[in-house]
Amino acid sequence: MSAHRPIRSALAAVALVAMTGVLGAASADSDEAAIRATMSSYNDALNAGKTAAVLPLYTDDGIFMPPFSQSAIGQNAIRQSYDNVFKELKFNVKFNIAELVHMAPTWAYVRTNSAGTTAHASTGKTTSEANQELFIFKKASDGRWKIARYSFSPTNPPN
Amino acid sequence: MSAHRPIRSALAAVALVAMTGVLGAASADSDEAAIRATMSSYNDALNAGKTAAVLPLYTDDGIFMPPFSQSAIGQNAIRQSYDNVFKELKFNVKFNIAELVHMAPTWAYVRTNSAGTTAHASTGKTTSEANQELFIFKKASDGRWKIARYSFSPTNPPN
Repeated sequence: MSAHRPIRSALAAVALVAMTGVLGAASADSDEAAIRATMSSYNDALNAGKTAAVLPLYTDDGIFMPPFSQSAIGQNAIRQSYDNVFKELKFNVKFNIAELVHMAPTWAYVRTNSAGTTAHASTGKTTSEANQELFIFKKASDGRWKIARYSFSPTNPPN
Repeated sequence: MSAHRPIRSALAAVALVAMTGVLGAASADSDEAAIRATMSSYNDALNAGKTAAVLPLYTDDGIFMPPFSQSAIGQNAIRQSYDNVFKELKFNVKFNIAELVHMAPTWAYVRTNSAGTTAHASTGKTTSEANQELFIFKKASDGRWKIARYSFSPTNPPN
């Protein structure tokens, strides 16, 4: 054994920690980008009124918690819920991310505010819309970030 | 150096890992108990209509997102928001925990359903109440679990 080995090992350890730091930061950046991409896809799917585009953005066991409705648990319930929503409402809204917090390697939350207009099929009227949203995201085994839980409510007073 | 040292070290490492596992499980149990205690205190504070009992259950930068109102960000805004709510409403509700997920050492989420009655000061009427809630909890440096973000909405159709 060389007397230098402990020093070399220590230097290697320092280098490894430094590298892990750099990789960690790069990974956090790409995670944030991936979460923002999912948010953007969700915004587009909502405005397009396409349930088929919404579903892949949720985890298999995802839960959608729309106001005035029971929580929709799992992909089938989520599909029914968005189908019902899109039958009545045509959205033209924009989500703004107020905060995005990476809580753990596979967990993050995003708080947003959305605003815009909603056209109602049953009345033919278009109303202004403003909501506050809380999304919990989970990173899937394929590296994609998906919506695991989603609760929101209107910020405007009731009509 | 004794030739036995690597073996002793290995055994010590195994013992340490085993102990950490046990301590980890015990810590997870006590974290879950602490989160449930905060939820129970919140339920009590809400039914008692006491803002002063609600505030310590939120983190300093906590955010309360009640329907039909802008998000209340931070302790002062949260105080005002609950004061307004309690001026109008007297709750007699019960929260049931649907899931409690420990996402990271200092992060958890809790999804609940609540139901009961609400007495309205302005109308003198008592209505039935049912909501779905999503809480994000954060473990404070003193080891207490507090509400960091809280979004909810009614599950009953609008009146």
